[in-house]
Amino acid sequence: MSLQKILDEIDSRRQHHVEDLFEFLRIPSISTYSQHTGDIRHAADWVSSRLARLGFRTRIHETARHPVVFAQGPQRPDRPTLLIYGHYDVQPPEPLAEWATPPFSPSIRDGFVYARGATDDKGQFLTYIKAMEAILDVSGEIPVNVKVLAEGEEEIGSPSLEAFLRQCPELFKADAVAISDGSQCALGIPTITYSLRGLCYFQLDVQGPRMDLHSGIYGGIVVNPAQALAEILAKLKTPDGRVAIPGFYDDVLPLEKWESDELAALSPDEDDVKGYLGVSEFTGEQGFSVMERLTARPTLDVNGIWGGFAGEGAKTVIPAKAGAKVSLRLAPRQESAAISRLFREFVLSVTPPGVTLEITELQHGADPVLVSRGSTSVQAAARAIETGFGRAPVFLREGASIPVVSLFKNVLGLEDILLLPWGRPDDGAHSPDERFSLEDFHRGIRSAAALFFELA
Amino acid sequence: MSLQKILDEIDSRRQHHVEDLFEFLRIPSISTYSQHTGDIRHAADWVSSRLARLGFRTRIHETARHPVVFAQGPQRPDRPTLLIYGHYDVQPPEPLAEWATPPFSPSIRDGFVYARGATDDKGQFLTYIKAMEAILDVSGEIPVNVKVLAEGEEEIGSPSLEAFLRQCPELFKADAVAISDGSQCALGIPTITYSLRGLCYFQLDVQGPRMDLHSGIYGGIVVNPAQALAEILAKLKTPDGRVAIPGFYDDVLPLEKWESDELAALSPDEDDVKGYLGVSEFTGEQGFSVMERLTARPTLDVNGIWGGFAGEGAKTVIPAKAGAKVSLRLAPRQESAAISRLFREFVLSVTPPGVTLEITELQHGADPVLVSRGSTSVQAAARAIETGFGRAPVFLREGASIPVVSLFKNVLGLEDILLLPWGRPDDGAHSPDERFSLEDFHRGIRSAAALFFELA
Repeated sequence: MSLQKILDEIDSRRQHHVEDLFEFLRIPSISTYSQHTGDIRHAADWVSSRLARLGFRTRIHETARHPVVFAQGPQRPDRPTLLIYGHYDVQPPEPLAEWATPPFSPSIRDGFVYARGATDDKGQFLTYIKAMEAILDVSGEIPVNVKVLAEGEEEIGSPSLEAFLRQCPELFKADAVAISDGSQCALGIPTITYSLRGLCYFQLDVQGPRMDLHSGIYGGIVVNPAQALAEILAKLKTPDGRVAIPGFYDDVLPLEKWESDELAALSPDEDDVKGYLGVSEFTGEQGFSVMERLTARPTLDVNGIWGGFAGEGAKTVIPAKAGAKVSLRLAPRQESAAISRLFREFVLSVTPPGVTLEITELQHGADPVLVSRGSTSVQAAARAIETGFGRAPVFLREGASIPVVSLFKNVLGLEDILLLPWGRPDDGAHSPDERFSLEDFHRGIRSAAALFFELA
Repeated sequence: MSLQKILDEIDSRRQHHVEDLFEFLRIPSISTYSQHTGDIRHAADWVSSRLARLGFRTRIHETARHPVVFAQGPQRPDRPTLLIYGHYDVQPPEPLAEWATPPFSPSIRDGFVYARGATDDKGQFLTYIKAMEAILDVSGEIPVNVKVLAEGEEEIGSPSLEAFLRQCPELFKADAVAISDGSQCALGIPTITYSLRGLCYFQLDVQGPRMDLHSGIYGGIVVNPAQALAEILAKLKTPDGRVAIPGFYDDVLPLEKWESDELAALSPDEDDVKGYLGVSEFTGEQGFSVMERLTARPTLDVNGIWGGFAGEGAKTVIPAKAGAKVSLRLAPRQESAAISRLFREFVLSVTPPGVTLEITELQHGADPVLVSRGSTSVQAAARAIETGFGRAPVFLREGASIPVVSLFKNVLGLEDILLLPWGRPDDGAHSPDERFSLEDFHRGIRSAAALFFELA
């Protein structure tokens, strides 16, 4: 059976593929909001039904929170096995007012589908299912053994997955794992990702007086918790954009010169990026290229702050409490458990007297990942991408985190991890107006189809 | 006509007074929220109708926003004239979850009426109307000429009042003005206030990238506006609680030693106040007593902060924007216009590159006020309070602001300003569970009645 016939079939199904993607995107499967538990279940059923139609043995496994879908096709001992991982949950869509069209009513503009989850990760994950449908319809069998693992907790840090994988690790035995969840280097430059940053995520709750107070009556003696929070957050960074936590950079693996040079060469035009983002200046560590700061250096960001009066007009209160969400992206060799300890110790040490601080770690920390670029699976993936995209991929580190990847390495002992992003840096993952290029969707399906043949 | 007969009548009407107060408190006349414009109008009508029942010539004057009620009784040239000022608008009630009973459903517990506006200022202002009702019912006439000015914009900084007063200043001509809006020194210590702090109130809006960004994809190069806001706010104060704006303290009138000593002697027990507020430590300028810091020293407070994700769980965004409300209380000799300039210059100078900052002054600034303690009107008020409360008042500075007072001085040339607070420091003005002691309400009515006779 020639791959070309399958690729032609895929080309002829573009309209159908988009319709199925729309159906998937209409499900508001927001994992972080408990009121969307039913939608999460709906999305799991949807994925499961698509895999069952491939003739896969399919099961929805319960966890403490959102279910895991696991499916496998026929497993022949003489063939290599590919594990495909994706997630069917999405980030919250807020702020809603900033979407041009509603986040769960997908719409097409200028060759992009706009919807929450379009690129992260429903659109990218769906490419594998659509590729397998075409292969099976044209040839009757997929040339490798396939297992599919789809979870509904990726956007909340995959809290249930480790226990699930540990229950029965042999079930997930494979020669390689493929994950498409992230972005290519730049428009028209297909990419294989060989490193991911890790993640620690905290909530800080500062408590001052037991109730909001009149700032005229009590201003001058009461420590203001919003002021205290600002002082804590200000101390987390140095003025030049470094993380100020002592010891934070100690374990970061420095890049070899060739890799720094390679990343610098892949750096996008700074003015283009500034224009797209609408900012006049960048920040970050001196002496590192933009691409190195975005992918190979650790960071800290305040993800949200709140406290006191945020309504229309003026209210003269000293708020009783204030809070913030703060997350850190970790670079290879940093360990999330150690960074979590350093963060807690430092934040407590800079909390002013007169308020109390509670620190909650909102997600199970994710360790950073670095995978080999030279394995035969990676080479096969490179050829598949060349087939799908018409151009050989570059190798790039990724700044975001996919917590499950370190589990695949540490729990399942999988080394050949194929991180094959079909998205683009300006897809707006986690932002309003998230989108996915229909061209990338199509080329992703073609690449996925080729991958099964290249691995065989 | 003996005052005692009137006081006896007031004593016999306690139940009726509370019922009328409840009716006033049920009107959610929140001036800062535009959707409450109808309620504000309702409250203006309510006040107007009560004054009309006294036989006063009453008018509701329109302004750009909320109306002013002005009324006057018979004006005899041989009698002194007292202008009574109050406000019928209230602060927003949020956070609603922290009220034991709803803010606009007044309820009585342990001798207090709980409702938004109970002490600030509906309950205190109403004492004058109730006193006049009793005087007129018992004796048929009030022994001084009375004018009443009640506004609906006090909690938003009285933006319309200055233009209104300037239109026809002779209308408000009076020998003294009485204002009951604030708190006594402490429980059981009736008080005459002879100084008020001024106020400047700002909103800061920090804009970073044009949309929320994925903190993994863009973390490391984009200046985070929540971080930038925290850095700005942190720089507004020194670690020991002083305002860090250069030149901020230059014009503050230092106290004479006798006045410092008097304030220190009136300072409440610090442990009692800490226990009531639920804080372990105080902050503020070294070398000043608690009472001096609360009333005679200027301050700065963050009244609210917002930005990014504040929902349940984790969302890994770099927010597009963040904001804060910040206000300053000014001490005598500081001028709000000058402080506003210093604040703007300083905040702009500490804004990090890579974000833009917009500064909006939300209220017309209020200058601080210092009034004579020795005038005959003040002495008359002291005797009236002794009649109403059974104890001579102390003289105290007040930390809060009543913007209209500087207008009375500057626009109308009124020097005899009687600031006669009937409330208590722990009434919770501007806080959830705002309350007013029924005993203070009653004693306030008695004192107000006595004031008309003492001034006559």
